[in-house]
Amino acid sequence: MEDFLYEQVSDKLEHLIRSGSLKTGDKLPSIRALSQEQGISLSTAYKAYSELETKGLVEARTKSGYYIRFSPRAIPSAPSAPQRREDGKNLSYEALIQQLQRTQADESFIQFSRSAPSPQLLPHAKLRKTMMDMMRSQPSAGLTYDVIQGNVLLREQLALQAFHWGGKIQASEIVTTHGCLEAITLCLEAVTKPGDYVLLESPTYFGFLRICQHLGLKIIDIPGHPDTGVDLGDLENKLNTYPISACLLVTTFTNPLGALMPEAQKKELVDLLEARNIPLIEDDVYGDLYFGPGRPRTCKSFDKTGNVLLCSSFSKSLAPGYRVGWCIPGKYLQKVIHLKSIRSLSSTQITHQAIGYFLAHNRFDLHIRGMRKALYTQCMAYTEAIGRYFPEDIKVTQPKGGFVLWVEMNPEVHSNVLLQAAAEEKINFSPGPIFSLDQRYTHCMRISFSKPYSADVDWALRMLGKLVRQATP
Amino acid sequence: MEDFLYEQVSDKLEHLIRSGSLKTGDKLPSIRALSQEQGISLSTAYKAYSELETKGLVEARTKSGYYIRFSPRAIPSAPSAPQRREDGKNLSYEALIQQLQRTQADESFIQFSRSAPSPQLLPHAKLRKTMMDMMRSQPSAGLTYDVIQGNVLLREQLALQAFHWGGKIQASEIVTTHGCLEAITLCLEAVTKPGDYVLLESPTYFGFLRICQHLGLKIIDIPGHPDTGVDLGDLENKLNTYPISACLLVTTFTNPLGALMPEAQKKELVDLLEARNIPLIEDDVYGDLYFGPGRPRTCKSFDKTGNVLLCSSFSKSLAPGYRVGWCIPGKYLQKVIHLKSIRSLSSTQITHQAIGYFLAHNRFDLHIRGMRKALYTQCMAYTEAIGRYFPEDIKVTQPKGGFVLWVEMNPEVHSNVLLQAAAEEKINFSPGPIFSLDQRYTHCMRISFSKPYSADVDWALRMLGKLVRQATP
Repeated sequence: MEDFLYEQVSDKLEHLIRSGSLKTGDKLPSIRALSQEQGISLSTAYKAYSELETKGLVEARTKSGYYIRFSPRAIPSAPSAPQRREDGKNLSYEALIQQLQRTQADESFIQFSRSAPSPQLLPHAKLRKTMMDMMRSQPSAGLTYDVIQGNVLLREQLALQAFHWGGKIQASEIVTTHGCLEAITLCLEAVTKPGDYVLLESPTYFGFLRICQHLGLKIIDIPGHPDTGVDLGDLENKLNTYPISACLLVTTFTNPLGALMPEAQKKELVDLLEARNIPLIEDDVYGDLYFGPGRPRTCKSFDKTGNVLLCSSFSKSLAPGYRVGWCIPGKYLQKVIHLKSIRSLSSTQITHQAIGYFLAHNRFDLHIRGMRKALYTQCMAYTEAIGRYFPEDIKVTQPKGGFVLWVEMNPEVHSNVLLQAAAEEKINFSPGPIFSLDQRYTHCMRISFSKPYSADVDWALRMLGKLVRQATP
Repeated sequence: MEDFLYEQVSDKLEHLIRSGSLKTGDKLPSIRALSQEQGISLSTAYKAYSELETKGLVEARTKSGYYIRFSPRAIPSAPSAPQRREDGKNLSYEALIQQLQRTQADESFIQFSRSAPSPQLLPHAKLRKTMMDMMRSQPSAGLTYDVIQGNVLLREQLALQAFHWGGKIQASEIVTTHGCLEAITLCLEAVTKPGDYVLLESPTYFGFLRICQHLGLKIIDIPGHPDTGVDLGDLENKLNTYPISACLLVTTFTNPLGALMPEAQKKELVDLLEARNIPLIEDDVYGDLYFGPGRPRTCKSFDKTGNVLLCSSFSKSLAPGYRVGWCIPGKYLQKVIHLKSIRSLSSTQITHQAIGYFLAHNRFDLHIRGMRKALYTQCMAYTEAIGRYFPEDIKVTQPKGGFVLWVEMNPEVHSNVLLQAAAEEKINFSPGPIFSLDQRYTHCMRISFSKPYSADVDWALRMLGKLVRQATP
């Protein structure tokens, strides 16, 4: 009962802060005053403020009380039609990606470019313990080839986990893969052939663009809305115009926009594609990293005919280097297993078995709860700092989960040029142009808040803000 | 000095046995007689016989002396031109492979179909110790994404190992991969495009055929000689006839024939392809498993211009389930790294690092020495048993390394039909037709001697022999 009350009060206050009704620097009522005003106990009032403090929305000042420390920013508008920059400022697409990958491997850089957990967020000790426990109890674990479809323990555990995202799945419906990228590649190969059209959101993860290009697929894109993802009207228009063979979409915390497609829209999307017999490849790799009250459902959970191919991994939530991904390819199951047997034979047994063991010992839920909380706090802190340090005319997304913020700057600021200046300060970020093959979004940047907030991070964001100011006319 | 003498004597005797001058059941001179005859000490004579006993060529009978237990078999002739069977006995190619993969995953089967180490040959305890040592000294080992090109420790160790096969290689020239299959796939993709012609040996590993087909490549094949591999005259003819884009060959212990191309021929092959600017993808996955006195050189060791792309792995020699492969792509290095970054991003860090650690602690050489000895002994025991149990008219290869024997039966015996009969007895093997896309070699079978000889194995070979006899007209 008490839990319910403090959450109600803190939710109400959060709404006032986020909507801008309460502004940065405003003083909040004292705990005593809040308690009287809302008819709640002192401890409940205290918990409500603590909750807001954890989220980075308010701060307690000694002997003074609670103050607002967050101010909402404008949300970027849905991306507009392509506008190719002709100012010669752009590196080639691949050169840009390779430059980014080089700085990502450079330990001296402050990393704002990775949409992946920073090492500080990972449960090193528990994973190590898991690996050791497993090797003690199964001395030969992982030495021989695993079954092609994937490690049995892991698949059984994934089937249990499916409950969280609304699925009823059997271990026999799952194929494990070398990270989510292999899952997506196998699914794309299962439902398309070179020369086919695929539909993607724009802006989108550059890995999608590269793999589609590599497979000889033609990309048709539709603008993503920063709040709700792709518009189904836009989608239908494209389906009516092009012979689309598959849709490849993130529907929960898109990358880079951080949008969450509402459940009703997800269901409608599934029905729409089902009616036209166009497979949906759904990348749910950020699904467990929600900031809201509960795990969003997947499109797969609305799939009755096996037309949705769900892909995911533990690379964003637990152990990137373990390369543990999977897919639930619906009616394309046999085809995906067949392709896996041709291309990679079997997955790395020991890491797949270890994650299965980690899940079986109920270590995942506890870990992911802490990680979600940390990410949300970091998201707030970064947003707040960007608000403080960047020019007034920028817009920032308010993601509902995941790792990244998308910043829209003055149209005259060129993200690639900014990247070179930042590199001299040993700071990196993901420049807007890598999120579409024709290098739109030159005035945008993706900033990852995966690294816990620190003095270094603060310095780097201030420096970035300074560089953006200098570049803004 | 003594070592040298006993080897000289045992080599001489081995030659007499293998050539058929000494026949199964023949009694050998006593140790005393041998010592006098050869002018060697009693202990040297004893060691010479022990060596032959280890190799399965002679046996000691209590209170009677040493007897020959090996009889040489005819070696199959070089495969002849395709002869498609029209008798309707053949399953489709893919159905056959899938049936095989099903029985390979079935623990109740006696496995003669895997060209991979059986679990008994792997150093379980030492690998486990390695993994644990590594995790203790580097608590966060393997958790985050590894660099795209591959684990640094592993690449440094591989560069040192290159000395054994005649290479001078830097860590910076190596790319690690998810097993050898990914290495070969990336190399093929780096040097060909769909529709191109590639040259393969026939018969060849079915994985090669499937991946070439999957990549849309046209396969031109040349017969492999069971002793020396592909004939360079045949190869030149094909190069003159077709616009070949790449050659994909095993030159050391081919699969299934077990041939070893002589060094001079390897050098000539490298020069020939270099002159025509046709890249050679060399699969050296069996190279460490030699039965002869020293490690055969690779084609790569003769490569001066980067035209040879060497691929290999530890899947055949140390830890199949770890999925640790690599390639040295010569002048195609950047292209291969680029393709890896698109398709699989990074390898599984923990297993790659563990193998690097295993090598760095000098644990590999000791292990592989024991494994080679075991395999050679097994090869002899299987060959001898096949000679005993199979009909007189069969021919068996005498591989110089690796895991497999290739058995040519009476032309009327159909390997696929035999496979069904064997499956009822819970025995599998690799039927000849899977080693070419047009399903030649219907009267051939590949038998793996990877499983240590035992009463079960003996029973299963006797049963197989019986089935072959029944099928022989």
